[in-house]
Amino acid sequence: MSENFRKYIVEFIGTFFLVLTIGCMSYISIDHTLAPIVIGAVLMFMVYAGGPISGGHFNPAVSLAARMRNALPGNQLFPYMLAQFLGGILAACTVNYFADGTSMPGIGFYLPALILAEFLFTFVLCYVVLLTATRDEVRGNSYFGLAIGSTVLAGAAAVGGTICLGAFNPAVALGLTFMSGCCMKLCLITIITNLIAGAFAAWVFKISTNEV
Amino acid sequence: MSENFRKYIVEFIGTFFLVLTIGCMSYISIDHTLAPIVIGAVLMFMVYAGGPISGGHFNPAVSLAARMRNALPGNQLFPYMLAQFLGGILAACTVNYFADGTSMPGIGFYLPALILAEFLFTFVLCYVVLLTATRDEVRGNSYFGLAIGSTVLAGAAAVGGTICLGAFNPAVALGLTFMSGCCMKLCLITIITNLIAGAFAAWVFKISTNEV
Amino acid sequence: MSENFRKYIVEFIGTFFLVLTIGCMSYISIDHTLAPIVIGAVLMFMVYAGGPISGGHFNPAVSLAARMRNALPGNQLFPYMLAQFLGGILAACTVNYFADGTSMPGIGFYLPALILAEFLFTFVLCYVVLLTATRDEVRGNSYFGLAIGSTVLAGAAAVGGTICLGAFNPAVALGLTFMSGCCMKLCLITIITNLIAGAFAAWVFKISTNEV
Amino acid sequence: MSENFRKYIVEFIGTFFLVLTIGCMSYISIDHTLAPIVIGAVLMFMVYAGGPISGGHFNPAVSLAARMRNALPGNQLFPYMLAQFLGGILAACTVNYFADGTSMPGIGFYLPALILAEFLFTFVLCYVVLLTATRDEVRGNSYFGLAIGSTVLAGAAAVGGTICLGAFNPAVALGLTFMSGCCMKLCLITIITNLIAGAFAAWVFKISTNEV
Repeated sequence: MSENFRKYIVEFIGTFFLVLTIGCMSYISIDHTLAPIVIGAVLMFMVYAGGPISGGHFNPAVSLAARMRNALPGNQLFPYMLAQFLGGILAACTVNYFADGTSMPGIGFYLPALILAEFLFTFVLCYVVLLTATRDEVRGNSYFGLAIGSTVLAGAAAVGGTICLGAFNPAVALGLTFMSGCCMKLCLITIITNLIAGAFAAWVFKISTNEV
Repeated sequence: MSENFRKYIVEFIGTFFLVLTIGCMSYISIDHTLAPIVIGAVLMFMVYAGGPISGGHFNPAVSLAARMRNALPGNQLFPYMLAQFLGGILAACTVNYFADGTSMPGIGFYLPALILAEFLFTFVLCYVVLLTATRDEVRGNSYFGLAIGSTVLAGAAAVGGTICLGAFNPAVALGLTFMSGCCMKLCLITIITNLIAGAFAAWVFKISTNEV
Repeated sequence: MSENFRKYIVEFIGTFFLVLTIGCMSYISIDHTLAPIVIGAVLMFMVYAGGPISGGHFNPAVSLAARMRNALPGNQLFPYMLAQFLGGILAACTVNYFADGTSMPGIGFYLPALILAEFLFTFVLCYVVLLTATRDEVRGNSYFGLAIGSTVLAGAAAVGGTICLGAFNPAVALGLTFMSGCCMKLCLITIITNLIAGAFAAWVFKISTNEV
Repeated sequence: MSENFRKYIVEFIGTFFLVLTIGCMSYISIDHTLAPIVIGAVLMFMVYAGGPISGGHFNPAVSLAARMRNALPGNQLFPYMLAQFLGGILAACTVNYFADGTSMPGIGFYLPALILAEFLFTFVLCYVVLLTATRDEVRGNSYFGLAIGSTVLAGAAAVGGTICLGAFNPAVALGLTFMSGCCMKLCLITIITNLIAGAFAAWVFKISTNEV
């Protein structure tokens, strides 16, 4: 895939998760206290993960500013903005879908939304791990732990307990099952979803970076 | 512009946003729980953005301490303090203006205050991106994502939902419109304001750094 | 001890504290507001502490993604997952034990749970200090303070005031006794527990890193 | 002053502010929600500020662990612990003094406590700026902004609005006066206290580092 197209994919993914999290914090999450922190955290980890590839804008105003300061080639400004707007619109559709399927914790989750939510945030966790902690290009950085930890902060706040367990991790899903609440079937669905999301993240990583 | 004058501009901008955010968290924001975090975050990202240029004091007591430790030339102490006090006073006027125009979220925003608030925080987001993520002088730093993410944390907590949408990003404004609440007219005003703020940030960046 | 076995120990410890903290924030802690931040913080400091040794996965989905991206040898995938699931299960048992022993702050703690909680979080604080701030291999990193500070954040939120004092530090235990609440006997038990945990952390550090 | 004595001063100061903040968050602050974050933040910025000099333990259990791992000479273990316990006890006395002088915000502050609180947290802000952002020994670090911003987070949460304005900055004090609440006399007292604290920090910095 062309180097430019990789940048557009990174901008699309980053803007998608930024707007998804803003929407979840506004319409899905029950406690809004942490919303500004969670939204800031998503932008932060996406900038760390995607910055070395695309510049990490996820924002047409930032792309315009970067263009005027000669940090973005002129012919990429429009595709950047297009990828960002598309990411924002798809994220809005996802939030609307989640909002229909929300149910109270403990009473029961809506299974397709549960699988989608666990998939998306496990994907982003693995995507961030691969981009910040396994690439030679960013070796020696001091932000990998901050970026990785923040993905779980974002997922737990955005969809954990409302749409899904919020495990994003088979070992956590198993631990939560031992501790109490959730039934074994829910645990198994979560574990399988998490593993598929990890595999998908490895595939997207290879596309985004051209690395094997 | 002279190198010293650039430092005074950076100190003025940093102190302006520090005091603006303190004022917004005290008199505009509805939930005060996060106030200490938000205020700390503003100082943090301004120190990261402006530190490599002016030292990132934004505080006459710090400038005095830096002077006594020989980290600031003697003839710059007074202009630093002047820029800081002017930034603080202008920020106080802005907060007073916002406080008059505050309206409840969902009922409707006061349009001139909305435009000013979206403009200021989109400006600071783009200003921080350009200063921390596009300059050769600070290449390889590990703080660019933390600084950039924190600008959105600050804006969302200080004015988001009370004075304006709190998008600071055309893709977010569009996504929020698709999700629900805001009308298309509000969306368009926000998008245009965000883009103008990005362009203004590129211009201020060039003045502050003498870079093209 | 073989180099691979050291990695499994690091993965076991990291997953144990991740699931322990998730469980404590869900079933032990009284105020759940900060739960997403605390959980993100634990993953962050464990990634910083253990990352340079094992990669810092603490998650079978991440290990699978790392395997598919060739960042983990194939014959280590199963032992990684085993260590992670074992850590998760042991953590769940610990949370269940804590949940039985919880008492209201000020009324009195359940002594065996108090000692275990002070021991565990003092251990993790010292383990993180040794791994992030005293090893030549990670000299010059910028994350040591963030990682170390976050261990106290996690301990204070997860068990402080509910299961134990939440000192994790003999000087803090003494200070809290001077300030008011706790009796001298409780202070002495906490101080001795803290010191034993520090010694144990030094021993585990030597096993995990083969350093003297 | 001998190099070892400088380390003991750094350990004393760090433990003093750690226990002071824990005490303030427990007995002075009105909203306890952020307590774990604030306590973690204090340990973090003190580790960043003092770590390169003394190792940044501020905890006898950590000093014991460092000793057993050969990161602290044997003859320094006792003086480290002594400095830490003394810092903890003095902090406890300060919290007890603050607790007697607490008054409700808006009704009026107790002047000697106000001056002491503004002095202490402005001192620590300037002390951290000088140690993390002006020393050749730590040039190029990525944590200076995080450390500096966190001092204001800690001060605002620990004593701001309860014991004092929480300005720690003459420009902020002036801005707050323009915005509303506080009278001009209170503003002037705060400004003078802040400046004296900055000068004192420069003097302590020189003692701690032997730099001019």
